[in-house]
Amino acid sequence: MELIDGNRIAAAIIAELKTEVAGITGRKPCIALVRVGEDPASVSYVKKKEKTAAEIGIEGRIHLPPVDITPADLFALIDRLNADPGVDGILVQSPLPKHIDELAVFRRVAPEKDVDGFNTLNLGKVAQEDDTGFVACTPAGIMELLARSGTDLKGKHVVVLGRSLIVGKPVALLALQKKAGANGTVTICHSGTSNLPALTRQADVLIAAIGRPEFVTADMVKPGAVVIDVGINRVPDATKKTGYRLTGDVHFATVAPLCRKITPVPGGVGPMTVAMLMQNTVKAYRLQNQR
Amino acid sequence: MELIDGNRIAAAIIAELKTEVAGITGRKPCIALVRVGEDPASVSYVKKKEKTAAEIGIEGRIHLPPVDITPADLFALIDRLNADPGVDGILVQSPLPKHIDELAVFRRVAPEKDVDGFNTLNLGKVAQEDDTGFVACTPAGIMELLARSGTDLKGKHVVVLGRSLIVGKPVALLALQKKAGANGTVTICHSGTSNLPALTRQADVLIAAIGRPEFVTADMVKPGAVVIDVGINRVPDATKKTGYRLTGDVHFATVAPLCRKITPVPGGVGPMTVAMLMQNTVKAYRLQNQR
Repeated sequence: MELIDGNRIAAAIIAELKTEVAGITGRKPCIALVRVGEDPASVSYVKKKEKTAAEIGIEGRIHLPPVDITPADLFALIDRLNADPGVDGILVQSPLPKHIDELAVFRRVAPEKDVDGFNTLNLGKVAQEDDTGFVACTPAGIMELLARSGTDLKGKHVVVLGRSLIVGKPVALLALQKKAGANGTVTICHSGTSNLPALTRQADVLIAAIGRPEFVTADMVKPGAVVIDVGINRVPDATKKTGYRLTGDVHFATVAPLCRKITPVPGGVGPMTVAMLMQNTVKAYRLQNQR
Repeated sequence: MELIDGNRIAAAIIAELKTEVAGITGRKPCIALVRVGEDPASVSYVKKKEKTAAEIGIEGRIHLPPVDITPADLFALIDRLNADPGVDGILVQSPLPKHIDELAVFRRVAPEKDVDGFNTLNLGKVAQEDDTGFVACTPAGIMELLARSGTDLKGKHVVVLGRSLIVGKPVALLALQKKAGANGTVTICHSGTSNLPALTRQADVLIAAIGRPEFVTADMVKPGAVVIDVGINRVPDATKKTGYRLTGDVHFATVAPLCRKITPVPGGVGPMTVAMLMQNTVKAYRLQNQR
């Protein structure tokens, strides 16, 4: 069994981007980071994104509207960022307060600045195998993890557990693309799937993104499979200072020994999302400035 | 074994639309039908669409630019139709001459008039389960055939053979949606799939859209399956006046006896596409005119 080290792979991508950005003369790429309110997880995510941007040489512009901002005012902020030629990418940190329609906000971001890849047009481009769009960071990160750990999907059966808009569906569409590294046969399972273990046991590559702690058990995995664990779940644990521990969607202790390769949680898919956000920002900069 | 009669189901939809359009006071819905050149199959398809529109009470405006039209002139025509408030839907008949980038033309059609459902934004809306868009006519027709022949996909394993932009991928996304009638578990197979029969034999519902005559044989189908045959292939046949016969992607003679339900070719999916185009046109009319 081999661990797929997301921290190492993400660090390699960040180092590559740093070199690339150092080679850019004149204005550097810029990402606007919008965080509404003070949700502790969001505070920590945005801080991490700001720090990584700075490390690469990407300008980070932080916008911190109050938690009670009206949808109209948030739209107006996004419109200003869309129109600002000095901003290449826009990230609106999820989750947003309940009075704001999150999907409407994501759609308000101009497609060419949608470095989060949540805009309808960019999801359509993934389906159409059009590389001029932006792939959402988590599915993009999964594909990079597979590629950089030497897993070619060609001729493989990829089983995706979960059909979310931001992970399950886009990663299924990516695995299916007629491209080097992809070209997989893809099955998408979900909470309504009958006889789930019989399907997941067929997976050469199993991508678990169902959001249930330790849901995937040893009886659901074929020996020799590659397992990508997208879940980040908090499970109560009295032995921890925080009162919880982080666990993935896979029961690591019993599944890992069966696998050819597996991602740990934390340290697998998680670190990749920030790296891919930065990659998308540099891509947005190049596409909008033709350089 | 029960035949799913596409002609009967399409006729029922057309009759419903006729009643619906009769109830519209004032300007009736209008579809612009654009055919470039004189390709015989295109001539016959456009004629069929014009006739069906007239039958329903939808205005059909025919545009017949010459085969050597420049891309710029074709774009200009589409721009005029996009801007014309009297035109609700625009259909550009495929295939286009080789000097014209078909995908660019489909993308030029305004999303709100894209009754063919080929625009990137509308494919993205299918992925996002957003009903304000347009579903491409063939996948929409497949879902109607299933619904109106009493096949609920909930808890079923749907295997799609083929990953095309206009059939395989959208029908997979539709079957997967969290909606009444859908909610299937979906596998997408293609030319690069290993051990294809082992996968297709798991299908409760098998959708064949691979474009190879009689490719699906009895050993690839589970007894009791529902089979939707999307293929329309011309196979040389000296006993026919035309010199060919039409066949689907399924070897009907040997597969049909195994099935619970199956669509014939012709008379299955084919007639549905025109009916769905008309349904999309009425929808486009209502969305753009808020009525």
